Amino acid sequence: MTDFMGKDFLLTTETAKKLYHNYAENLPIIDYHCHISPKDIYEDIAFNTISDIWLSGDHYKWRVMRAVGIDEEAITGNASGLEKFRAFAETMPQIIGNPIYQWSHLELQRGFGISEPLTPESADEIFNSANKQLKNCSARQLMRRFNVKAICTTDEPADDLHWHELIAKDPTMEIKVLPAFRPDKAINIEKPIFADYIHLLEKTVGYKIEKTEDVIKALLDRINYFTEHGCICADHGLDALMYEAPNYEIANIAFSKAMRGEPISGIEANTFKTIVTIACAKRYTELNWVMQIHFGCLRDVNKPAVALMGSDHGHDAVNSRSGVENLGPLLNAFEENKGLPKMIIYSLNPVDNTAIATIIACFQGGGSRGKLQQGSAWWFNDNRPGMIQQLSDLACNGVLGCFVGMLTDSRSFLSYTRHEYFRRVLCELLGEWVESGQYPNDENYLKKLVEDLCFNNTNEFFGFNV
Amino acid sequence: MTDFMGKDFLLTTETAKKLYHNYAENLPIIDYHCHISPKDIYEDIAFNTISDIWLSGDHYKWRVMRAVGIDEEAITGNASGLEKFRAFAETMPQIIGNPIYQWSHLELQRGFGISEPLTPESADEIFNSANKQLKNCSARQLMRRFNVKAICTTDEPADDLHWHELIAKDPTMEIKVLPAFRPDKAINIEKPIFADYIHLLEKTVGYKIEKTEDVIKALLDRINYFTEHGCICADHGLDALMYEAPNYEIANIAFSKAMRGEPISGIEANTFKTIVTIACAKRYTELNWVMQIHFGCLRDVNKPAVALMGSDHGHDAVNSRSGVENLGPLLNAFEENKGLPKMIIYSLNPVDNTAIATIIACFQGGGSRGKLQQGSAWWFNDNRPGMIQQLSDLACNGVLGCFVGMLTDSRSFLSYTRHEYFRRVLCELLGEWVESGQYPNDENYLKKLVEDLCFNNTNEFFGFNV
Amino acid sequence: MTDFMGKDFLLTTETAKKLYHNYAENLPIIDYHCHISPKDIYEDIAFNTISDIWLSGDHYKWRVMRAVGIDEEAITGNASGLEKFRAFAETMPQIIGNPIYQWSHLELQRGFGISEPLTPESADEIFNSANKQLKNCSARQLMRRFNVKAICTTDEPADDLHWHELIAKDPTMEIKVLPAFRPDKAINIEKPIFADYIHLLEKTVGYKIEKTEDVIKALLDRINYFTEHGCICADHGLDALMYEAPNYEIANIAFSKAMRGEPISGIEANTFKTIVTIACAKRYTELNWVMQIHFGCLRDVNKPAVALMGSDHGHDAVNSRSGVENLGPLLNAFEENKGLPKMIIYSLNPVDNTAIATIIACFQGGGSRGKLQQGSAWWFNDNRPGMIQQLSDLACNGVLGCFVGMLTDSRSFLSYTRHEYFRRVLCELLGEWVESGQYPNDENYLKKLVEDLCFNNTNEFFGFNV
Repeated sequence: MTDFMGKDFLLTTETAKKLYHNYAENLPIIDYHCHISPKDIYEDIAFNTISDIWLSGDHYKWRVMRAVGIDEEAITGNASGLEKFRAFAETMPQIIGNPIYQWSHLELQRGFGISEPLTPESADEIFNSANKQLKNCSARQLMRRFNVKAICTTDEPADDLHWHELIAKDPTMEIKVLPAFRPDKAINIEKPIFADYIHLLEKTVGYKIEKTEDVIKALLDRINYFTEHGCICADHGLDALMYEAPNYEIANIAFSKAMRGEPISGIEANTFKTIVTIACAKRYTELNWVMQIHFGCLRDVNKPAVALMGSDHGHDAVNSRSGVENLGPLLNAFEENKGLPKMIIYSLNPVDNTAIATIIACFQGGGSRGKLQQGSAWWFNDNRPGMIQQLSDLACNGVLGCFVGMLTDSRSFLSYTRHEYFRRVLCELLGEWVESGQYPNDENYLKKLVEDLCFNNTNEFFGFNV
Repeated sequence: MTDFMGKDFLLTTETAKKLYHNYAENLPIIDYHCHISPKDIYEDIAFNTISDIWLSGDHYKWRVMRAVGIDEEAITGNASGLEKFRAFAETMPQIIGNPIYQWSHLELQRGFGISEPLTPESADEIFNSANKQLKNCSARQLMRRFNVKAICTTDEPADDLHWHELIAKDPTMEIKVLPAFRPDKAINIEKPIFADYIHLLEKTVGYKIEKTEDVIKALLDRINYFTEHGCICADHGLDALMYEAPNYEIANIAFSKAMRGEPISGIEANTFKTIVTIACAKRYTELNWVMQIHFGCLRDVNKPAVALMGSDHGHDAVNSRSGVENLGPLLNAFEENKGLPKMIIYSLNPVDNTAIATIIACFQGGGSRGKLQQGSAWWFNDNRPGMIQQLSDLACNGVLGCFVGMLTDSRSFLSYTRHEYFRRVLCELLGEWVESGQYPNDENYLKKLVEDLCFNNTNEFFGFNV
Repeated sequence: MTDFMGKDFLLTTETAKKLYHNYAENLPIIDYHCHISPKDIYEDIAFNTISDIWLSGDHYKWRVMRAVGIDEEAITGNASGLEKFRAFAETMPQIIGNPIYQWSHLELQRGFGISEPLTPESADEIFNSANKQLKNCSARQLMRRFNVKAICTTDEPADDLHWHELIAKDPTMEIKVLPAFRPDKAINIEKPIFADYIHLLEKTVGYKIEKTEDVIKALLDRINYFTEHGCICADHGLDALMYEAPNYEIANIAFSKAMRGEPISGIEANTFKTIVTIACAKRYTELNWVMQIHFGCLRDVNKPAVALMGSDHGHDAVNSRSGVENLGPLLNAFEENKGLPKMIIYSLNPVDNTAIATIIACFQGGGSRGKLQQGSAWWFNDNRPGMIQQLSDLACNGVLGCFVGMLTDSRSFLSYTRHEYFRRVLCELLGEWVESGQYPNDENYLKKLVEDLCFNNTNEFFGFNV
């Protein structure tokens, strides 16, 4: 029996252990997609209690706490940090098989040197012990402890990138912190926030935005601004992937209606979104940026709960109508427009995996290595079975050796352990293939695969140069 | 090699064996969803031959017998019990990997002490041996042999629950037999049987049902009647899950048309169904009932066969348009109506698993433990891979520790072996997690998990109090 | 650790090894669906270099070569055979987990006796060594080396089957080479090629084709012609499975529009296609042919690439709108028309598996063994995880023992190794079931299962009589 979360956790074969410990374990981390605040990094914030870092903003944990019957007061309410920690400890033994169980213990081990399982019995001791350790755990200290070389934050077009400027100028900060361009609020015209955001964008760019062409112009201007600040990638988030034949007349009807707060049809909205997205992709191509698309999310499913707590409090889900049928036409439109950038495609619905893998394979080429990427197991799929499924689907219908691998998608400085988790799952899978005679036990090629998938591919694909 | 269907069948690790034999094996059974006749229980019926109990009503078996080329005469026709048994024995060696193969052998072992594999060679001997054993196997004797503590049958709104009354008054019957409220015939307005059933319901409640409001009133009256007879749960069966914005005018147009036998549109039907379902859910909430929804079934696919044999003869399938996209809106409507009861959600289409798991997680809360449940692997998914998938999907995106576990959904008194099957699959999964270092080898917490998932959660969630 | 692609490759249990080596390994091959040219067989063509046989027409390989960044010149361009081989060798170590990796090595081993892994370092040596071996590898020699007893090619209705006639008359050719009837070009009315093909068909049958009824008449005439040439099966390829209520008026509007090159609606096209497909199925039933349906393919996704290279150059993908919801109605229409033939159903979208398995089970019967078959893992699913999934889904909801097993779907004389691959996966699965106590360790029944699934079922189901 392997020790609980021990040295060989998740590693069952000799090959897997060798690959992980010899090659994967000590590689540095590039976290190319996260939601960490650049301000927190610049200010090198400290944390008072483990509840601040674990429970104040993590909707993953809130969901399981609700499911075991914890009162909302002890989840997002006014209970004390210790009370919330105890409530989470009560939850832990019940969430066997949930990634939160393993992430949490990895974070206790790697962040605080605590290897005891978290239970109601051990809660108070671990709370105190972790809080003591937190005194030596500022934001930057944690990043260094996890051997982070570079990260991309998530930033909106109207953002002035002030904190990124300060970080870049700070001689005491050796870790690369780059912005990533996330234009959703200026593209997702069906959302109530759209008109307000366009007005904000008008202020940022200093001119009127009165039609689709202006939205595009403003976004391209901001892309230039982001480029000047070191940005090398964008991320588009869509509840459902869309494609409508580009038609500026329809797009502008949609724009006018949206700005006046009038309802717009699905076709109108998707026409606008398609046109703007194609224009962005074209510009990313010219700049050699990486474009990510995340789709397939059902937002704010429980309206009374959202009315009470706001969005992003654990009331999102998988969209069974993810729009994956539009992926082929959209990529084709990029290609026909001579603007198909390097891309990473993620669907939140795991049933889309094979379709995505086979569609992107139709757009590889031009001598670019791994130009189109099937994104790693995302959000609700970011768990061991989800990762194995994604790696296996990708391997079967694409080239695993070109994969850019893991990201945290997280708001927490402790989440870098998810790279360790991914590396273990990856090495176990590679080990299984070698041990069952499906791949040669060739040290050099295996070493290269591990290093490529855990670090090199990301570094080269994005152009981090670290 | 593990013995065929032996002591450690399906259990490959030491932890799995320990968990199963020490904790799961001897727990009593609550079968919260089945189709057993309460009359058969009250009358404590006996069985003449194993063909009566195995082959006279089991469409699972009929389907595989048809597939191997057995003539219908020996399936649902006039062949003798022995002839049908021989035909099934001929089928058996070919259905490797089908749950029927293992269910049948478990039933031979636990029901009749027969451990020989059923083949054409052993058929006659097993037929005779089982028939001898059947002399000591009345309905109640079988329920006691399997340590059944409580069951819920499936009953229609117009049912007078006469047999349940008799069972409740019978001092010689210590096993709890409760009705479950299944209002499908009064809700599924698109079915040809609807108008007739409404007329039957009119007789039951003693007043005219002339509009949607009356249907609701009648159902609520019957819910009260069921409550008086100990009922604690309902079950709604839908070919496809629906949601339309509640609109009584449209619902009443649908109702009038349906009562006159006129065709109704999908939107009309779904509006009626949504309104009535919301009203039922509200009442279940007030009564603290559990509401089950089963959806995703394609009924009577082969029309010539159904014309010949009738429904429920093995001509149903998975609906690839299950309507899972309506789950979020429907649950939200319950919530907005302040009537979201404890629920168990089942889709017959396994590709819906992740969507369901993540949607119900949006509606957990209010201090209720495991309020929304992802139903166990149902019907065509009720097999080892299907169970592992459901348990894994649930664990990853919900709280496995709160799961209410297995039910038989069966018409047979021998099917309680499916609880054994489930418990073995569950213990194997838990064992795998422990042995690979994903969960601590903590006897107390593992014992609690096993007992909760095999008995306690069901007992507490429904309120069986056994 | 098992040797790389060694004797026990993919076989991890003693039972699996025994079943494979004792029973599966030496069985002859029937390849009931492939795209080999009958002309090549008649002429018993030889090959100059391994690049001719491996890289000149294999879009599987082209796709992974594009993904690793190989220039198109060295894929489908004018680079030399050696240069292309080197480019493929550069690709190989990166495609761990892709079936191409294992197919290629199996082909090197079984075709040429080369067991060294293909890498950039070994490329030139293997190229030369394989080319030398190719001197003893004509088309027929390869077929004999793989112990092929019979194959079906893929042939269009207008084909004169000249080469099949010559092969049939050739006393030196002992392997059965039968045509298969693939009427897509005369049925898929939405394709640009349709009108031209109808004109070609007019020439073949010698009469005017002016309406739907004429198309049917022409196809039935050609079915008769194919029957005279030994044909025993048909194959229908559909981007999405369709069903519309048969209506000759609408079908004929569609036909007229299509012949004039005018756009037709989806309903019009599908009405025509449904009618013609039902008529074909009826005739196949009378002739006791096997009807295959392949659906769920998204063709020519990348239009600029297709414009440059043409179709079938690696730009097809999985169709997330496969039309599986029409399978029940279509099979029912066959049944109601008293023309449901023996069938094999394949969807390219693996999420359709459970729906297909459960739908076809509704149409089994009439005393025919395995009348409706769930096709083996096809194209993008033709890999180890895909095969395991298909076998498991089929076993759970159908009868694995009746399965007709593997086909190559290939254009290459080396692809018969895919039967070996399938047999290993199958024996491993059977072995796992036996060793975990799910099936008796009964030599006779296991031998029969292996022989049935690898050879006998195919031979009997189609009526090859070899």
